[in-house]
Amino acid sequence: MAARIVWRVTPPIEFHPRAVFPRGVRCASRNVGLKPSARDLTLFVSEVDAAAAAVFTRNHFPGAPIILGRETIQGGRLRAIIANSKVSNVATGAEGVARARRMAAAAAAEVGTTADRVLVSSTGVIGVPLPIEKIEAGVVGMASDLQGDPLVGAEGIMTTDSHPKAISCAVGDATLTVVAKGSGMIAPNMATMLVYCFTDAALDADALRAMLGPAVDRTFNMLSVDGDTSTSDTCVLLANGLAGPVDATIFATALDAAFERMTEILARDGEGATRMLRVRVGGAKTDAEARRIARAIGDSPLIKTMVHGADPNVGRILMAIGKVTDCTVHPETTDAWVNGFAVVQRGTRVAFDDAVVRAALSVETVELRVALGVGDGEARFWGCDLTKGYIDENAAYYSS
Amino acid sequence: MAARIVWRVTPPIEFHPRAVFPRGVRCASRNVGLKPSARDLTLFVSEVDAAAAAVFTRNHFPGAPIILGRETIQGGRLRAIIANSKVSNVATGAEGVARARRMAAAAAAEVGTTADRVLVSSTGVIGVPLPIEKIEAGVVGMASDLQGDPLVGAEGIMTTDSHPKAISCAVGDATLTVVAKGSGMIAPNMATMLVYCFTDAALDADALRAMLGPAVDRTFNMLSVDGDTSTSDTCVLLANGLAGPVDATIFATALDAAFERMTEILARDGEGATRMLRVRVGGAKTDAEARRIARAIGDSPLIKTMVHGADPNVGRILMAIGKVTDCTVHPETTDAWVNGFAVVQRGTRVAFDDAVVRAALSVETVELRVALGVGDGEARFWGCDLTKGYIDENAAYYSS
Repeated sequence: MAARIVWRVTPPIEFHPRAVFPRGVRCASRNVGLKPSARDLTLFVSEVDAAAAAVFTRNHFPGAPIILGRETIQGGRLRAIIANSKVSNVATGAEGVARARRMAAAAAAEVGTTADRVLVSSTGVIGVPLPIEKIEAGVVGMASDLQGDPLVGAEGIMTTDSHPKAISCAVGDATLTVVAKGSGMIAPNMATMLVYCFTDAALDADALRAMLGPAVDRTFNMLSVDGDTSTSDTCVLLANGLAGPVDATIFATALDAAFERMTEILARDGEGATRMLRVRVGGAKTDAEARRIARAIGDSPLIKTMVHGADPNVGRILMAIGKVTDCTVHPETTDAWVNGFAVVQRGTRVAFDDAVVRAALSVETVELRVALGVGDGEARFWGCDLTKGYIDENAAYYSS
Repeated sequence: MAARIVWRVTPPIEFHPRAVFPRGVRCASRNVGLKPSARDLTLFVSEVDAAAAAVFTRNHFPGAPIILGRETIQGGRLRAIIANSKVSNVATGAEGVARARRMAAAAAAEVGTTADRVLVSSTGVIGVPLPIEKIEAGVVGMASDLQGDPLVGAEGIMTTDSHPKAISCAVGDATLTVVAKGSGMIAPNMATMLVYCFTDAALDADALRAMLGPAVDRTFNMLSVDGDTSTSDTCVLLANGLAGPVDATIFATALDAAFERMTEILARDGEGATRMLRVRVGGAKTDAEARRIARAIGDSPLIKTMVHGADPNVGRILMAIGKVTDCTVHPETTDAWVNGFAVVQRGTRVAFDDAVVRAALSVETVELRVALGVGDGEARFWGCDLTKGYIDENAAYYSS
């Protein structure tokens, strides 16, 4: 007998077939010479000041844009975001921070605002000086390119991403749009990658702050491509109020759902990934223990390669649960499923037909569920398989 | 100016060019039908009872041999070790423990002792029933095969290892021999893999226990191939006393050095590895913080792929240090070196010639040193590069 467990349910939200922006938000992107020819600079602009909140990486070596961004976000208001790809402006000392400030000033001049209303992001190689002159020259005239397709902005911030990423949904009369990039160095802590969220709902900075942290915690912070935490992670939410007030609870639910969907989009586009891996752990002593065990499973190279090869080597699930030695785990109450098929009951491997489990693993989305039978704690985690493509992308990232 | 730091020195120990056993210890190995034709069963025997101590995996799902071994080692005396490869007898329930007991009894009968003086180990796939009849039939007559080459015993316990592993050194008039296996699912916690140590020094079980834990902690517990902790890790030390007493401090130093050498041998044979990675962290607030940061660097997939590709993407070192958010790290006092070449000073990447760092990385042993400049804590960690060979070995381990 498997443990009886009631899994928590996420309310369904409808997303637009193709992402749109809220009222008053537009973007532009260009090649300014950081990459050979692909777009490498993006500008997002709200036509009026927006209330704003952000969470940033907790890495000890934050990039210069993070150091500046923590200062900028204090004001709780933003008009624009300027972001470049290819060079991350991290480990570049005081000169790096000075260049981030110049980047904010250049964008402010182009948009017609002040530098303290512009959030700066940079993503790419660590430890290389930011070619600020190219950015200052390149941003001139971008205000006249502004248009309404979020994917155009998403394209300018891509690094190893295989496609630009943007989604949107309605929240009452308002719209919520999430634009993101990221496919490697993903194991966020506090915030993740670059995620820009825009709404025309009227919500103040305190309200945004109150909902942003928990939503990030349940979604992006439970995503890992490789267990490595970027020095540039940023997640920012702008609300320009042009659609008037919305129910904050409904908005928070939509934000959660949008972050969850973007988390799955990012997991699917993990470097070299061919399958998405979703881990659900229930029946843990606490939610915190469920999170740690879900992460241990989803980050395990042996689980990730098993999923890649659709190899029914399910004992590795027990290995990964078991290595979290300071959480409460009892083999005799531990059950596990692969895409709904029971593979472990009471800590012992079920005598299954290998071909059935191989088939269950041979799909694009692999969900591993674990019921620990020791409490009500639950968590979800997202990841992807580990493939030779990951090695290819990362053995020469700097040099290519 | 880089931080000034005095690194701790390990005393040098001479190892035999080819491993030998201590007085009174011999081994045999055979194919008993678990693998198609390779040796899959090993017997180690001391001609007299030996004092013994062991450390085992802390994984929540210990294999049946670990459950039995914890009971057996209580007595503090062993005559023999029997170990099979191919099937690990983990996640096999009460029947698995019963089969481990039958395995001990079969070896005891063959050697002429009692089952409580026999340590049992199994290594291989998790969750598959142990073919105990093949082992019971196969062990008969092994006592007459016993001989003096430790590599013969090492061969019978290999799984994905590319070669058998045994080393030995003199400690006064006594000999210390370490036989081990392991190349994947290696991120030990408390003990690691299978490591069998034999000496003819006269040391009691308490003395062995006192030196085994700390030596494992400094060496095998600071080794990781993939961050995954095996359910079968075992490290046991037998002292049969045939060489008489030795200085315990000198013996402990030799044990440390032998474990360090075996750790490097195991790291070099990590699944798919082409380079060994050694990480030294000094100037940390405490040794414990140095250990955590060294592990974060050595386990990082982005560091491991950078080393594989000899890509001078050294910003990743800062990323990996920085992701350990709850240790004391100050960018302005952080320096780093790649095989002696300074790449980071005061948290900022040095403006180096890429070709020089590429050359420093293009060797078999890559040492990354980090000086944190916040205290006297120091640690070393061993690992290897992450290659397509790891994916090949692990995407079909169960099925092949």
